[in-house]
Amino acid sequence: MIGEKIRGHLYQACFTYQTAKVVQIESKFIGLLYHVILVGLLISVIVWIFILNNGYQYVDHKHSTSSTSKVKGVALSSSSKNKKAIWDSSDLSGIPGTNGAFFTATNIIVTDEQMHDECPESERPGYTDCDRDEDCKPIFQPYHLGHGISTGTCNTSTHTCMVSAWCPIEDDSGATSSKYSKLKYTNNFTVFIKNNVYFPFYDKRRSNLVEDLNTSYIRSCLYHPIKDPYCPIFRLADIVGMSETKEYETWRVNDELFEAMTLKGGIIGITIIWDCNFDYNETQCLPAYKFERLDSYEGNDISQGYNFRYTSHYAEDGVTKRTLVKAYGILFVIQTEATARAFHLQTFCLNVGSCLGIFGLAPILAELILLRIHKKRSLFAERKTEKSGAIKDLLIELKALREKSDEPVEDNR
Amino acid sequence: MIGEKIRGHLYQACFTYQTAKVVQIESKFIGLLYHVILVGLLISVIVWIFILNNGYQYVDHKHSTSSTSKVKGVALSSSSKNKKAIWDSSDLSGIPGTNGAFFTATNIIVTDEQMHDECPESERPGYTDCDRDEDCKPIFQPYHLGHGISTGTCNTSTHTCMVSAWCPIEDDSGATSSKYSKLKYTNNFTVFIKNNVYFPFYDKRRSNLVEDLNTSYIRSCLYHPIKDPYCPIFRLADIVGMSETKEYETWRVNDELFEAMTLKGGIIGITIIWDCNFDYNETQCLPAYKFERLDSYEGNDISQGYNFRYTSHYAEDGVTKRTLVKAYGILFVIQTEATARAFHLQTFCLNVGSCLGIFGLAPILAELILLRIHKKRSLFAERKTEKSGAIKDLLIELKALREKSDEPVEDNR
Amino acid sequence: MIGEKIRGHLYQACFTYQTAKVVQIESKFIGLLYHVILVGLLISVIVWIFILNNGYQYVDHKHSTSSTSKVKGVALSSSSKNKKAIWDSSDLSGIPGTNGAFFTATNIIVTDEQMHDECPESERPGYTDCDRDEDCKPIFQPYHLGHGISTGTCNTSTHTCMVSAWCPIEDDSGATSSKYSKLKYTNNFTVFIKNNVYFPFYDKRRSNLVEDLNTSYIRSCLYHPIKDPYCPIFRLADIVGMSETKEYETWRVNDELFEAMTLKGGIIGITIIWDCNFDYNETQCLPAYKFERLDSYEGNDISQGYNFRYTSHYAEDGVTKRTLVKAYGILFVIQTEATARAFHLQTFCLNVGSCLGIFGLAPILAELILLRIHKKRSLFAERKTEKSGAIKDLLIELKALREKSDEPVEDNR
Repeated sequence: MIGEKIRGHLYQACFTYQTAKVVQIESKFIGLLYHVILVGLLISVIVWIFILNNGYQYVDHKHSTSSTSKVKGVALSSSSKNKKAIWDSSDLSGIPGTNGAFFTATNIIVTDEQMHDECPESERPGYTDCDRDEDCKPIFQPYHLGHGISTGTCNTSTHTCMVSAWCPIEDDSGATSSKYSKLKYTNNFTVFIKNNVYFPFYDKRRSNLVEDLNTSYIRSCLYHPIKDPYCPIFRLADIVGMSETKEYETWRVNDELFEAMTLKGGIIGITIIWDCNFDYNETQCLPAYKFERLDSYEGNDISQGYNFRYTSHYAEDGVTKRTLVKAYGILFVIQTEATARAFHLQTFCLNVGSCLGIFGLAPILAELILLRIHKKRSLFAERKTEKSGAIKDLLIELKALREKSDEPVEDNR
Repeated sequence: MIGEKIRGHLYQACFTYQTAKVVQIESKFIGLLYHVILVGLLISVIVWIFILNNGYQYVDHKHSTSSTSKVKGVALSSSSKNKKAIWDSSDLSGIPGTNGAFFTATNIIVTDEQMHDECPESERPGYTDCDRDEDCKPIFQPYHLGHGISTGTCNTSTHTCMVSAWCPIEDDSGATSSKYSKLKYTNNFTVFIKNNVYFPFYDKRRSNLVEDLNTSYIRSCLYHPIKDPYCPIFRLADIVGMSETKEYETWRVNDELFEAMTLKGGIIGITIIWDCNFDYNETQCLPAYKFERLDSYEGNDISQGYNFRYTSHYAEDGVTKRTLVKAYGILFVIQTEATARAFHLQTFCLNVGSCLGIFGLAPILAELILLRIHKKRSLFAERKTEKSGAIKDLLIELKALREKSDEPVEDNR
Repeated sequence: MIGEKIRGHLYQACFTYQTAKVVQIESKFIGLLYHVILVGLLISVIVWIFILNNGYQYVDHKHSTSSTSKVKGVALSSSSKNKKAIWDSSDLSGIPGTNGAFFTATNIIVTDEQMHDECPESERPGYTDCDRDEDCKPIFQPYHLGHGISTGTCNTSTHTCMVSAWCPIEDDSGATSSKYSKLKYTNNFTVFIKNNVYFPFYDKRRSNLVEDLNTSYIRSCLYHPIKDPYCPIFRLADIVGMSETKEYETWRVNDELFEAMTLKGGIIGITIIWDCNFDYNETQCLPAYKFERLDSYEGNDISQGYNFRYTSHYAEDGVTKRTLVKAYGILFVIQTEATARAFHLQTFCLNVGSCLGIFGLAPILAELILLRIHKKRSLFAERKTEKSGAIKDLLIELKALREKSDEPVEDNR
């Protein structure tokens, strides 16, 4: 029966073991070479995987995080029109964004008491210039890059078309041309950043208000990368300075870098870096802060800075009015990069396993020299290689010899 | 001493080399088969890892990014109640969200001059219907899905309960039933998107305002996927069109897809894709834009569209008042997907190393045919396999022969 | 010619096949041991890679997602000063944040009708205390942690310095000291969360408004982790309760956990988890909700809770005024964690391939026992190892024997 035959084969296969036949070559040169390569690979693997890359630890990038920020400060706008006007941080920063992003206006153009009316377009854009009514768009057509709907008439004193719009039209032509921004003291604004990070895999929670900080320290400290690296309160001009230079004492001296940014605004990224090794005490898991400018400030003119407009609507004497604010300023975006690591048996085993393959390089390299480069390579090749049928030939010869010597020899093969 | 013995063994082990004994089979069929498999695997590996997956390059997904957006345009609300009212982009879009998200209202319900008072609930929700005071909640109980705190009385003309609330109550029943939205010209609104991406690993910075664009082009261009793929200014109706169809000329003709969305609003994702190969000049690293609708618009009625309410508070003649706005519109969410790649020796070595294992398949496949399928398989098996003791038997036989021939032969084993 | 010689070598190499010579050892112990290790490894690999880690499936983490939220509810502020004031969700929640983050104020300090003036600083900060004008900062110097610009004079009744600021100065000293927060009924506020997720790799779209939900159910349901796990409407006090305890009936009984949070505010993360197996019907791909508190609430006093200030500006009788609101409340951050998996031939092959290496452990382990531990280890070693030159010696001997027997034997090597 075939089934029985297969079962017999299987039975035999289970109880025999096939192992590679090896040739032992007693050559000091090759032996030493092979073992040097082997030890070299071993050291490389240990250094690379286990020391440089902490291969015995599981690295968890997954975390929940929350960042909140609160800006403090008082600024003074010195435009002749508004007289001396006070702006505090709630005027200039508004509602904090998701994940703690915050904005601080540094240069503001306020157009008060706008109401629905007809008035000449601003002179700035250039595409509403006119000398006669025919130069303007027909009535009810909108000026999309302007501010209103055409009335079809031309204002002969401003030489721009008349529009139905929120009047008076904002005049932002002078805002970025003046050398200094219109809000004083914004460089001294401070921001208090709270960052919490939770690692679900290790069920551990860390806050940037680390254990060493006490309430009185937090009330008075100011972040400095070397002297106060864990103080969660940052001076805005310092953040701008640190985003552009690593020479810490440079930006401390004056706030030139900040002043240069206030005119047109910009975007600064604040990255809070957590690299926690939970094999140590978790109180040694401390935050680091990195600052970098995110908006492009070299290149196209049109792309520089950061600004936006917002409005508040209200009614006065039954008339709907609005205040239009064009705010140039700095947007601070908070990002969290957190990793947690700790010894993890399974990761350790996987890494050991995946390194076993590397050791296969040792015989490949040794044999490359043995069979291709070594001066006795033909001898090694002969010893390593058995030409097909060699033993069979031997047996044939033996049989012949045996027959010749006329004596029966037991052949137990 | 055992220690000395081990040292001896170790010494001997270090200076000998063991290599697998191989059998050379001179069979054209098997030789060719083996080398064809080998070359096939080699080509597969090269194509797969090195051409399709760029295995010689390190791919860096980590980047800092900032996106900002600015909406431009003028819209006209044509409700009979508000007369012709002008809305510009700062009214309709407000403060841009984190990472450049922006909203544009397309359909607005304004309830002006609300103040604290008592008035009948709106007729819409249906759960404040009443005929008598007993049908209403007791005094001071809130209507959570309604608009105020019950006064315990029933208004017999509207047949709804009286509430202490911001009065008059908003009436949003007509907003989504009219065929066309109440804001005209929002389809022609444009948005200027600035996106900057920084790859810390390569210390390279890219902006979507690429080198080829000059200021005058940016002032007048409009994004088109084929004709103007790098223009950073997008028409809103085009974005909506591109999110639903790839046939570019369809959405150019009319703005039906946009009009269909204005009534109830929606959410559109704008993905800016950077796939930078820094082996080439970095000026060849250019952005691509992808648009997709993110809110579900098929399925449950209640889930359609996007809207929210906001209020402005003010005081008039000592009375606190507010303007309540229910804004239906389109929320545009900007996402950045950036990868940077460049030649990296270490990545190259790791990939070569991990491919070495694949070549082990060649002998496995060849031997499968050699030992199981080939008609001379038993012959191959015999040559490959040495039954335990075979050489030993030979040596025994030789010894017997030697003894018989009475001549001492040196055995150097 | 050398070229011809190399071609000859190459030709020969292509048509011969070298295979490892194996020794077959007929030992029940070793045979069984080897096959038990082999089967053990096979089972481990199958269980580990293919059952526990679904190695036959490609796992796609990439997705586009949109989350939106809408808060409903009416609250009552019971401060004696404001009389009974109604606050609805549009007052308390405002514009929803990016990706559906929403805020609900639970405790509010309103400072109405502030205008530019001179008034004494608040008594709270402590650093503007004065008895004489000399104790204050010089005129025009700002109080950065205060509210205005110094006028250089001391107010002798409040014993604080006079500042040029938005007056009257906000008095927030009583806000967090009272046992209960000032807004009633915020615990019963509900939020309707819409979440859409799109997997580009599989081109599948899922919404948390799953197929089974009909409009009437959504209008009346309330999320419960066991009874109504797919209802997209959440009671705020329930979310807070679930973030702190898993014993679901505890937080249902009373809203203590919520009440404890209303005073100083906090941050709650809502994670929507999609783990979709597209080998099954996609309607079985359902969302799960996880809630966790993200702000640190143990530790430093100064770091507790969440609050921010915002302002509305308006003009009354030509005077610019503002309403300043300090809102304590709960910020809800919505995160989406989505993975999609389905059978994928290439992933399957890669995993099978990377497991082949593991089977190399079987001979290593078997030989460790065979050559180092087994009592017949020297016998095994002798059979496995061919001392260099063994066959050569045999051939030399044979040659000698042949010569002795004076008969030519064909040597086909």
